[in-house]
Amino acid sequence: MKSIGIAILLAASICYAQDDAGFQPAPTNVMDAAYPRVDTASRVEIRVKAPDASNVRVNFWSGPKLDMVKQPDGFWTITTPPLAPGLHYYTLNIDGLEVSDPGGHAFFGGSKDASAVEVPEAGSTYYLPQGIPHGQVREIWYHSDVTGTWRHALVYTPPGYDSNTKGRYPVLYLQHGAGEDETGWIRQGHANFILDNLIASKSCKPMIVVMANGNARRVGAAPPDSAGRPFGSPEMMRAMQEMAKAFEDDMTQVLIPFIDSNFRTIPDRDHRAMAGLSMGGMQTFQVTFDRLDLFSYIGGFSGAGGMAMMRSDQKPDMKTAFNGAMADPAAFAKRVHLLWIGVGTEEPPQMKGGIERLNASLTDAHIEHVFYESPGTAHEWQTWRRDLKDFLPRLFQ
Amino acid sequence: MKSIGIAILLAASICYAQDDAGFQPAPTNVMDAAYPRVDTASRVEIRVKAPDASNVRVNFWSGPKLDMVKQPDGFWTITTPPLAPGLHYYTLNIDGLEVSDPGGHAFFGGSKDASAVEVPEAGSTYYLPQGIPHGQVREIWYHSDVTGTWRHALVYTPPGYDSNTKGRYPVLYLQHGAGEDETGWIRQGHANFILDNLIASKSCKPMIVVMANGNARRVGAAPPDSAGRPFGSPEMMRAMQEMAKAFEDDMTQVLIPFIDSNFRTIPDRDHRAMAGLSMGGMQTFQVTFDRLDLFSYIGGFSGAGGMAMMRSDQKPDMKTAFNGAMADPAAFAKRVHLLWIGVGTEEPPQMKGGIERLNASLTDAHIEHVFYESPGTAHEWQTWRRDLKDFLPRLFQ
Repeated sequence: MKSIGIAILLAASICYAQDDAGFQPAPTNVMDAAYPRVDTASRVEIRVKAPDASNVRVNFWSGPKLDMVKQPDGFWTITTPPLAPGLHYYTLNIDGLEVSDPGGHAFFGGSKDASAVEVPEAGSTYYLPQGIPHGQVREIWYHSDVTGTWRHALVYTPPGYDSNTKGRYPVLYLQHGAGEDETGWIRQGHANFILDNLIASKSCKPMIVVMANGNARRVGAAPPDSAGRPFGSPEMMRAMQEMAKAFEDDMTQVLIPFIDSNFRTIPDRDHRAMAGLSMGGMQTFQVTFDRLDLFSYIGGFSGAGGMAMMRSDQKPDMKTAFNGAMADPAAFAKRVHLLWIGVGTEEPPQMKGGIERLNASLTDAHIEHVFYESPGTAHEWQTWRRDLKDFLPRLFQ
Repeated sequence: MKSIGIAILLAASICYAQDDAGFQPAPTNVMDAAYPRVDTASRVEIRVKAPDASNVRVNFWSGPKLDMVKQPDGFWTITTPPLAPGLHYYTLNIDGLEVSDPGGHAFFGGSKDASAVEVPEAGSTYYLPQGIPHGQVREIWYHSDVTGTWRHALVYTPPGYDSNTKGRYPVLYLQHGAGEDETGWIRQGHANFILDNLIASKSCKPMIVVMANGNARRVGAAPPDSAGRPFGSPEMMRAMQEMAKAFEDDMTQVLIPFIDSNFRTIPDRDHRAMAGLSMGGMQTFQVTFDRLDLFSYIGGFSGAGGMAMMRSDQKPDMKTAFNGAMADPAAFAKRVHLLWIGVGTEEPPQMKGGIERLNASLTDAHIEHVFYESPGTAHEWQTWRRDLKDFLPRLFQ
């Protein structure tokens, strides 16, 4: 018995030593913060000091919700089960207040500066900085008569944009999801590094990418009556539709003319694309199908076709859907150079089902399109990074 | 008695109604957040839901520290006394955990994404967007052999930079304070709007402004042994000095060559300035006096001359200070086109005294310089916005 006891102790001790050695501060941490940290099995350990709290929980928005454990030193800790690779939003709940973890950088999501922890994906470097030429991400401000406000947007310009002063470039408009803003595709998505890497390997065309704030409200309009309503409620749907219409007007009447005046674009529909994730995908389908005179490449990342379509159990009728634009598949294929939809295999059934039904309807109606499934990822940024990596090489060819 | 009672009730009710009407959501709030809010008397009301907390406090880093009051609905509230105008960092303490307020945007300060609330300054528009041409703020990434890491910096390019493709511009290197990063001068300081406004009124020359991350550590170096040490302790001083030396090497060996290669600069000392706030001011004095071959304009905003000088009660000896660069005042005035120091009148005595002693020493030694006092402001961003507004028109004339 004694030798077995020692063996168990040894095993436990070895296991603990390996675990501890395998943990590294997350890449998303602020300088010198030791926690949160991630081990080689993709487990995340969180640790915060709250000596007087009676209850501390962690809520991964697309993952586990766990009670943290109080230690004698006043710190609360928890280690998650292994998580999927990618960036995971989470919130700490301290005695009823939802807050972010001071150990990590904040990312705008859930309509606030929220915590998110990066779990590295072994072997994936396509969204990391490499020793290759880098483009620039430029902040611009434009005044919108539609919203009556100064609006902030980010613009990626490809390597060589400043020296190639005669060159003109195609443009992708790339939108964030609900509760996020124009910073999401850079901070959370690393879109700039994805572009740099694909451009360096000549896998995609050098292009300008515009990331605008999709949270638009018409000048003088009151805030929507959707606060506290469940996602998908009639009030929320109405609010999102009103926002999408205001954003469509802002984008087509103000932003696109501003970009075409201030950047060396090729300002025609054959060289203009739009894509977005979740709410941004729904906005993309609304804007592009309203204005096929402006766009010829369309991408919906975990969001496409409008919320009514996502919530219905019925397959959409391609003769009438999207303003009837697909009623004639051959004419549509000639007019729209790319129709791209994607979803993660671990997304909620409603989202996955909606995209799959749209895919089936497009296939049944013989409408040329691309359907991409991201294996093992949920309604999260790793899905949308992969989407972008698949989508970009198909543009402007 | 009855009429007095009614009068008191009426007065209270009128007072409450006026107060409530005078409050507006802070400009720094996330979309549609009603709190924190600011009234016309510059009082800030904070409100958070923490139904199970036993103690909630608010800590304004350069202002009041107040216990919040629990309301029957589970919200905690507090209204501050009137605050000085400008951006005020603060933290919420929930049962011992220091967190940020989810109602506002986060700003990197105190080595984390912290809360800050903007109190408008009546009549001050110089740091707000106006209907004039705007420059761009560009994110760049460069790999540093000094730190062994990819480093992120922001670069302001003036209006017209893209169209005036033959034009070359002078450059200001502009640094943040301790616990902040390269985003501070844009997010907290609104340096881009200050530049836009001064350039539009022809009050300063169009210029490029580079904002780098002053938190530098030499490749392979261990984190400093200064965690938890009081500000100004020997360990902290040594850590900041090591960081300043690493940053000096990164800046002079990697960043400046990168900027001169990738932007249309005038790459000589007569067209290169450096300034910084607090720790960034100390870094500025170290870098520029080490490398007067590279710089000819020098600005220290609430920080100048190194920490030893700030902590001493003695006036520095201008014959030997700063590598003896000022021993001959006439020669110095010929070589350095601007030496600028400033401090807010409400800053802590040690900071204020240090800058005032330096000013007195410079004056006594007949060394040409500018000394600026910001009235009524503390060691905070409103001081540094005013500093920049005074400093910029004096550059490159």
